[in-house]
Amino acid sequence: MSFRNFPMVPRVVFGRGCFNQLDEILTPKRNSDKAPFIFIVDDVFKGNDWLISRIPLHHNDKIIYVSAEEEPKTSYVDKYRDDLVAEFDEIPSGIIGIGGGTMLDYAKAIALMLTNPGSSADYQGWDLVKNQGVYHVGIPTISGTGAEVSRTTVLTGPERKLGMNSDYTPFDQVVLDPELTKDVPTNQWFYTGMDCYIHCIESLTGTFLNAFSQSYGEKSLDLCREVYLEKDLRDEDSQDKLMMASWHGGMSIAYSQVGVAHAMSYGLSYLLGTKHGIGNCIVFDQLEEFYPEGVAEFKRMVEKHNIDIPQGLCKDLTDADFDIMIDVSLSLVPLWENALGANWKDTITREKLRSMYEKM
Amino acid sequence: MSFRNFPMVPRVVFGRGCFNQLDEILTPKRNSDKAPFIFIVDDVFKGNDWLISRIPLHHNDKIIYVSAEEEPKTSYVDKYRDDLVAEFDEIPSGIIGIGGGTMLDYAKAIALMLTNPGSSADYQGWDLVKNQGVYHVGIPTISGTGAEVSRTTVLTGPERKLGMNSDYTPFDQVVLDPELTKDVPTNQWFYTGMDCYIHCIESLTGTFLNAFSQSYGEKSLDLCREVYLEKDLRDEDSQDKLMMASWHGGMSIAYSQVGVAHAMSYGLSYLLGTKHGIGNCIVFDQLEEFYPEGVAEFKRMVEKHNIDIPQGLCKDLTDADFDIMIDVSLSLVPLWENALGANWKDTITREKLRSMYEKM
Repeated sequence: MSFRNFPMVPRVVFGRGCFNQLDEILTPKRNSDKAPFIFIVDDVFKGNDWLISRIPLHHNDKIIYVSAEEEPKTSYVDKYRDDLVAEFDEIPSGIIGIGGGTMLDYAKAIALMLTNPGSSADYQGWDLVKNQGVYHVGIPTISGTGAEVSRTTVLTGPERKLGMNSDYTPFDQVVLDPELTKDVPTNQWFYTGMDCYIHCIESLTGTFLNAFSQSYGEKSLDLCREVYLEKDLRDEDSQDKLMMASWHGGMSIAYSQVGVAHAMSYGLSYLLGTKHGIGNCIVFDQLEEFYPEGVAEFKRMVEKHNIDIPQGLCKDLTDADFDIMIDVSLSLVPLWENALGANWKDTITREKLRSMYEKM
Repeated sequence: MSFRNFPMVPRVVFGRGCFNQLDEILTPKRNSDKAPFIFIVDDVFKGNDWLISRIPLHHNDKIIYVSAEEEPKTSYVDKYRDDLVAEFDEIPSGIIGIGGGTMLDYAKAIALMLTNPGSSADYQGWDLVKNQGVYHVGIPTISGTGAEVSRTTVLTGPERKLGMNSDYTPFDQVVLDPELTKDVPTNQWFYTGMDCYIHCIESLTGTFLNAFSQSYGEKSLDLCREVYLEKDLRDEDSQDKLMMASWHGGMSIAYSQVGVAHAMSYGLSYLLGTKHGIGNCIVFDQLEEFYPEGVAEFKRMVEKHNIDIPQGLCKDLTDADFDIMIDVSLSLVPLWENALGANWKDTITREKLRSMYEKM
């Protein structure tokens, strides 16, 4: 096909407090009393009664607390899958991710790996997943990644950081409750929101863009600007709008791609374990050459919110370290093609990438 | 539930020429060689080889040409359903609507009535449909109604003009090919696009609005303004953008509602058979009191494109005629509540509606 037949999330509920409807949403999806719902929950919520007490547990349902300190890894996905298969007599009725991009990506990947054989590392790429996963639900508690609506789940594997991009990857249900984002720490709120802002700049200036993706990207960008430049408070309105910015920003990738910032930050993440949001900020801060207006605006946002963008990450790296980052980055061909067109290799040489990484 | 768990169209393809991918999209959905795909096609395309030759017909697939001169009626929906049941040994594999809102609404309604007993008039209302319909696909050839993405199919029945609003109503697949809209006559292009513009004004000024619907409505409105006020040409860019305006405008209704213009134009349509797009324009032209900025901008668009808005439709009506229109309009409670809040009856009396209709 010339144009992608894009899979949209078939059910979405939006509203402050709609998290309370989770039981009603899940109940019709239970396959049997022995087929549990598995909740993948960011471990920052451990002991947070306000949220945890509202997770509807019945029969053998289970909460698995996961740390978001590390980026999601194929080895952990495989381990969670193996443990679930060993522990329960029946395949789970559903996997529900509650948290940021890391929890959402784990939920998507585990749901897929319960019905697809082998290691999740075998499916890093485009359209390699063959079987529909188990029912999976995404409930973001921080806004920006677009993981709630995307057709990928980005994993760090033995050889690469790359998503399982497939028509089976998107959630079957998304619960958008902006109230869940009210306690996000300021730095994290900024870094993750900037993931969205950077998505949009990369999508809107990319060569793959069409009117579908453009309209979503423009709206997302408008909302980011309102939240990070025009407003002074992180009030309810701001929480609502940033959640929609993330949603539309994710949709804008449907017929587009991310670009230079993502291609380079994947290298940082792979080598140094740098988290995705902050990694994008570290890279984007140095990309005036590629995105002059976007980077200037980004710097104004950084200044307004008094955010610390880490410097000097690469100053002690070896030649071998740089080579690893450069290899990971260069492997992301669709991202470079989107950013710079078919002749991207004329601009992006190993030496060029080395000199750019050295500034970070 | 407090918040609607909104059903989104699960598959969408967007792109100029993507209509050519229809065969690839439909083939996996065929239930058997005896279960046809039924194409509901606007009869303006009869003999239009450019479009008709690309409809992929196999086995006993059938094109049914339908006139869009009249608004869709429950009696016709029932008749098409009965004819299909009588003609074929198996229930159709799918119903594909190709045209404007009328064809899309027929496709949705016929698909639902193939699996729900009785008359479509029994299902006019909210959440009355009990069974999933057969697979149904929407392919708009004119932009503005939002029928491609909405959870309703608006029908004129023996007692009312009202939609079959249900979670089963949305299309399973939408094909957005802006090229299909290139030959729409100017007046029709304007009236149907204004359906979208008026949706957005009604949604954005309504009392039901939340951040989800607002973000879609604002983007749709931006695109309408670009197409109808800023641009001078109906070029490819304009076709692309108006198709996205319609899409986002339809989405903006998810957590919102239309308002005064729709509530009154339904009365006109019911009594006089006035087509929906032009009916909305006739009504909206007189609604300065409710939507002062929107109506002023609408009048600028009318002037810029030198459009004729019919006048004097109601000048020869009888008291009984007015009563019929007023009854239809007053029955649309959610629309009035959205427009004017819970106390809408303080403003909207029978006398008030009569005096407003008399101006049209």
